[in-house]
Amino acid sequence: MNNAKLHAFIPVFYLAWSDDLLTQKEFQTLNDFIKNQSWLSEEEQSFLLSKIAISNPPSREDLNHWKLELEKIVQKDSSVTSIFDMVKALSNNDVNLLKLQPDFMKLENDLGFLGEEVISNFKKTASSITSETQTNTSFDIAKLTAILDGAQAPIINKVKSIISQPEFAYETTTDVTVYRNKVYEWCQILAKHNLGNMAYPKQYGGGENIADYFAVMETLSYHDLSLVIKFGVQFGLWGMSVFSLGTAKHHEKYLSAIGSLELPGCFAMTETRHGSNVKGLETTATYNHDTKSFTIKTPTKDDQKEYIGNAAIHGQMATVFAKLIINGQDYGVNAFIVPIRDAKGNVAKGVAIADCGLKMGLNGVDNGTLSFDAVVIPKENMLDRFASVNEKGEFESPIPSDNRRFFTMLGTLVGGRIGIPRSALAAAKSGLTIAIKYADQRRQFGPQGGSEIPILNYRMHQRRLLPHLAKTYGIHFGLQYLTNRFLARTEEEMQEIEALAAGMKSYSTWSTRDILQECREACGGKGYLSENRIDALKNDTEVYTTFEGDNTVLMQLVAKNRLSEFRKSFGEMNSLGIINYVFENAKTAVSEKNPIATRKTDEAHLLDSEFHLQAFQYREKSVLAAAARRIKKLIDDGLDPYDAFNVVQHHMIDVAQAYLERITLEQFQIAIATVEDEAVKVTLIKLAQLYALFQIEKNKGWYLEEGYMEAVKTKAIRKMVNQLCWDIRPDAVALVDAFAIPESCIAAPIAFQ
Amino acid sequence: MNNAKLHAFIPVFYLAWSDDLLTQKEFQTLNDFIKNQSWLSEEEQSFLLSKIAISNPPSREDLNHWKLELEKIVQKDSSVTSIFDMVKALSNNDVNLLKLQPDFMKLENDLGFLGEEVISNFKKTASSITSETQTNTSFDIAKLTAILDGAQAPIINKVKSIISQPEFAYETTTDVTVYRNKVYEWCQILAKHNLGNMAYPKQYGGGENIADYFAVMETLSYHDLSLVIKFGVQFGLWGMSVFSLGTAKHHEKYLSAIGSLELPGCFAMTETRHGSNVKGLETTATYNHDTKSFTIKTPTKDDQKEYIGNAAIHGQMATVFAKLIINGQDYGVNAFIVPIRDAKGNVAKGVAIADCGLKMGLNGVDNGTLSFDAVVIPKENMLDRFASVNEKGEFESPIPSDNRRFFTMLGTLVGGRIGIPRSALAAAKSGLTIAIKYADQRRQFGPQGGSEIPILNYRMHQRRLLPHLAKTYGIHFGLQYLTNRFLARTEEEMQEIEALAAGMKSYSTWSTRDILQECREACGGKGYLSENRIDALKNDTEVYTTFEGDNTVLMQLVAKNRLSEFRKSFGEMNSLGIINYVFENAKTAVSEKNPIATRKTDEAHLLDSEFHLQAFQYREKSVLAAAARRIKKLIDDGLDPYDAFNVVQHHMIDVAQAYLERITLEQFQIAIATVEDEAVKVTLIKLAQLYALFQIEKNKGWYLEEGYMEAVKTKAIRKMVNQLCWDIRPDAVALVDAFAIPESCIAAPIAFQ
Repeated sequence: MNNAKLHAFIPVFYLAWSDDLLTQKEFQTLNDFIKNQSWLSEEEQSFLLSKIAISNPPSREDLNHWKLELEKIVQKDSSVTSIFDMVKALSNNDVNLLKLQPDFMKLENDLGFLGEEVISNFKKTASSITSETQTNTSFDIAKLTAILDGAQAPIINKVKSIISQPEFAYETTTDVTVYRNKVYEWCQILAKHNLGNMAYPKQYGGGENIADYFAVMETLSYHDLSLVIKFGVQFGLWGMSVFSLGTAKHHEKYLSAIGSLELPGCFAMTETRHGSNVKGLETTATYNHDTKSFTIKTPTKDDQKEYIGNAAIHGQMATVFAKLIINGQDYGVNAFIVPIRDAKGNVAKGVAIADCGLKMGLNGVDNGTLSFDAVVIPKENMLDRFASVNEKGEFESPIPSDNRRFFTMLGTLVGGRIGIPRSALAAAKSGLTIAIKYADQRRQFGPQGGSEIPILNYRMHQRRLLPHLAKTYGIHFGLQYLTNRFLARTEEEMQEIEALAAGMKSYSTWSTRDILQECREACGGKGYLSENRIDALKNDTEVYTTFEGDNTVLMQLVAKNRLSEFRKSFGEMNSLGIINYVFENAKTAVSEKNPIATRKTDEAHLLDSEFHLQAFQYREKSVLAAAARRIKKLIDDGLDPYDAFNVVQHHMIDVAQAYLERITLEQFQIAIATVEDEAVKVTLIKLAQLYALFQIEKNKGWYLEEGYMEAVKTKAIRKMVNQLCWDIRPDAVALVDAFAIPESCIAAPIAFQ
Repeated sequence: MNNAKLHAFIPVFYLAWSDDLLTQKEFQTLNDFIKNQSWLSEEEQSFLLSKIAISNPPSREDLNHWKLELEKIVQKDSSVTSIFDMVKALSNNDVNLLKLQPDFMKLENDLGFLGEEVISNFKKTASSITSETQTNTSFDIAKLTAILDGAQAPIINKVKSIISQPEFAYETTTDVTVYRNKVYEWCQILAKHNLGNMAYPKQYGGGENIADYFAVMETLSYHDLSLVIKFGVQFGLWGMSVFSLGTAKHHEKYLSAIGSLELPGCFAMTETRHGSNVKGLETTATYNHDTKSFTIKTPTKDDQKEYIGNAAIHGQMATVFAKLIINGQDYGVNAFIVPIRDAKGNVAKGVAIADCGLKMGLNGVDNGTLSFDAVVIPKENMLDRFASVNEKGEFESPIPSDNRRFFTMLGTLVGGRIGIPRSALAAAKSGLTIAIKYADQRRQFGPQGGSEIPILNYRMHQRRLLPHLAKTYGIHFGLQYLTNRFLARTEEEMQEIEALAAGMKSYSTWSTRDILQECREACGGKGYLSENRIDALKNDTEVYTTFEGDNTVLMQLVAKNRLSEFRKSFGEMNSLGIINYVFENAKTAVSEKNPIATRKTDEAHLLDSEFHLQAFQYREKSVLAAAARRIKKLIDDGLDPYDAFNVVQHHMIDVAQAYLERITLEQFQIAIATVEDEAVKVTLIKLAQLYALFQIEKNKGWYLEEGYMEAVKTKAIRKMVNQLCWDIRPDAVALVDAFAIPESCIAAPIAFQ
């Protein structure tokens, strides 16, 4: 092309044929554009039209040539930011062309281009903010690890060193029998190290250290989760049921053999027809006056004990929950020790055991069903701490209500609802370690002309992983708090602590479910390969939301507890009282819900930990008060209370959720207040801010409905969440390194590239 | 107790010792209450206090006796609704007691009781609305099935009858080799039935029926998902790449052998280092002028082909995507047929194959890695529909841009993004069938004195499953629409259809992920047992969100397409123009966003399909316009376009999401309009209403931010969602029966109780 004004149309040609896929209609738009240039001669028009005729594409070489010319222009002059700017530069400032600026702008629009994006494709070395961010640790990782481990550091380190030994190398077989035996062997090794009996009294060989026992459960969870569950079934469920529900004679007879794993056993509560509603169990233990014994009986197939860990292969005895029957009268659910097989593996007479078969995960645990066809056990096998049959064959108990006795018994077993969420927490930490380390190394896409960038630099990837990282830190401190409350419990506090445990169990296990799902997807195809361990982490923890209490059912219990606390602290439901309840005092009410506060968006306010906690508390109390009012109104309107509670079930989940979120944030903030190292503190504060604002963003519909925030504020919060993700990204790898999970446990090749 | 006024305190004694767990503090409250009754003699007080002394519990018999007395009162007089009412009835209207009403009300509050709930526990047969709802089908199931199957009913029924045969009995081994071979055998049987070549031209033995091919994929997905993926790899990816990218010589040579499964093959695109960014593939195909051949080479281990289905065991050839190099010049990614092993299983010279090993799911598919150490293939093995090397050794193509050519090639393979979401849809239908049938039969808890009730009667359970059921119906019609658009496509529409396919692939596979997660949890422990099949459904479909394009990346593509459409239809971004765009015309704007509309909550309005669609359209357009404005502003403010697009990634997901939700609702409504049977129509309308309102509820934060709705309306919508769940519940079983999934495929024992 020797004609400058024709030369100037190169950008148009190039765009027509290059990366952006123009449709036939858009080619027509280009044609019309050229035909409208009446200042061009007919010949010139024809020439231009021939260059953009669909039937006559340029050669690949022509295209490359055009591209080089355009690159030269863009790279020479940084003020070139639109297609017209390129045209102008190529035209030698032809007057006719200069007049065409509006036409070219319209053309850009008609074709759906963003001029700046097109231009950036011609820049040689596109450096960008997105490509420059990278891992850059701002604090001492070991100091943070020390804060996380706290007083349990010695036992945590001991467990880590044991599970890093070669005999704990992962078993990768798909043969369930091999896997189950391997897990059993691991448990034996752990028992030898006196880890199983950690919580038992010293007189039975135990460590008498419940805090350490929980730390053992959590740390073992970095390794194999079948191992943790098998370990928990043996030493926690089986052993602690004998300890908590039995008396000295049982402790002396069984505890040290349980703690050493000489006597493997089961915890047989759940039945096929009764899982959540354990009060409705149908297995019976009928007292025989003549022989001073009990007959254990499974009435029908649907009443068999189900999912019982240790039952299919290894268990020799079981704590069986059954309705005690004396002289035909039902005395409610009690617990009995029933032998199910001998040490050689022969199944006891009258006992039928079946294997639950393959499961979604935890296939290293031998779950089975148990049924009892008139199995006779001696009287002393009744775990008789809370109820017994006296020498005359009469029922005796310090707790007259069958129901209350049963819940008191269950209350002694609440430790399981601490061990499980802490195990779930460890699994979430493992998943995040794998996904974040991979995201820091894995490169995909990048600016034109630049190299590919780590996927953790992408906003979506940050949004997918970093709020989960913040939540995991929050839950860590929340579970520490739960553990401490449990260890220091008084009788008076038990109901509250039971509700807290039920709630944190749900909150942590659901969080882990969501986190591992996101980790799997964030690792793409690599996340699907079993070698990268998200498979096992995800499928093994999948049932955590179900066992030790179905989460949805537990959340209803938590909400009912909150409701009953609410009724106690605040019986009369007049509006002023509720406002006082929600805002604690009227002064806060005014300052929180006035038009200035609801529209306040300055950074200092949005990042203020007091604002966060107040917003969480406000939500917690308002949702609770509203639920109480709704139930009252439904019943006043004539609904049966049972129906009324069904109607508000969905609301009740919010009551529990809001409570658990407040607990988590509060404990996160309290923990941070004690941190002395400044760099660690600054980082943890950012995480707590991200946790708080991410939850508020999630609940923004509610805050807007309540008028607690206006749109300008919720939008500012969304922006701040993005900013915090961006700010935390350089520390993300250090923050998972601080979990200090043994490399042999992480194992995933993608975490070590 | 012979004294009536003391007798009247029985409710207090009973409450102290019965089911409700009073704490020590609350016992104190009771003590204080009694001590404050100055009208009682000291002796009387002592007597009462002795009954509620913690150290002196009543006997179990006393407790039972009290209970019987209270039951008598409550059952005799239905006006008894508080603890005080019971006291009154027991007191013979003692004047002193009658004055105590406020005190007793306060006591109820102090103890945290809800009087009505306590009373309802004494009612003998508590019948309630919750316990009375049950399955009660309102329409002809076969008629609904006919609507779902449409014109594909014959092929669907044919496939169902084949996969119900005994040779398709599920393989339950954990031995991967056995499973893979079984899946391969199944594929051979399907090939014999001419199902594999369904989409190929008749001249190569095919059925030339793409619509039927998609129906085959979807229906096979009721059976084993490894089977579907193996089938799809062979006949879809491998066969269709030869068909779509090759020319007559390739079709003649390969197609009929591929269709009969005599020639198993692979589709080798993804590399370890390049999954989403396929444009960056590193494998090379270098042209050798002297021998007129290509040398296929894997530069480094990180560039090996990865996750390739059929590669580890069965594949004999592969369509390999590689950069074409002629005389040292790179001509972009092209496709080549490369033999990888012979019919006896001997791996070809220069080819290295490794097994990807165990995966989270789809273990019946033999995924492997492929690398090529200077493997030489003849010139004719280049799939040369879009590019070729001529006799002179020069590159030729009708599409000059390498990039554009590559995306044109990819465009021909868009069928995979229809087959996968339809397979995901089938898996969701299977999961919902199992979970809903189980929930209809599984009983747990119930009103005091009544029997346990089906868990599907609980509001939370309805909320967990029924909106998913509604969404599944919506997606069914959305995918029918996608299929029809694809079948009737013109060149002009291809970009839109590609974006639609990418979007619906993400929307459907994410929906299936969420649905199967909820189904697993909703089935509790039973859902964790592999025999109930949610395990396989969930783990097999887990990677659907990753393969055929990572969902998060695809959503960005969809949003970019929407943005470019937006720019075309609406280049100048002044405010009036945007309002016109968002509301289509000013008249609607006024009627939709005025204070009456934003606060309108009457039932007719909330259930109005026009309101639903307008709300979806408003969201779609507003979110899109806002994204366009934001990007423009960021770039105007000096941000690199690459950074600007990173900043808005999260917003872009919303753009795509809102578009897909609108498409789904719109197609759902259009499909309903053609239904003739009134009973079916009424039911589908309820489902569409539930789908619409549930999405609006989910997005309520946005609607409130925008002022499109006020709190009074979003709250009314939440209530309506609950009501719709309740109304649909009796038809829930019929609605999954209408999917008409073969019983042998459902297989889960819990679905057949």
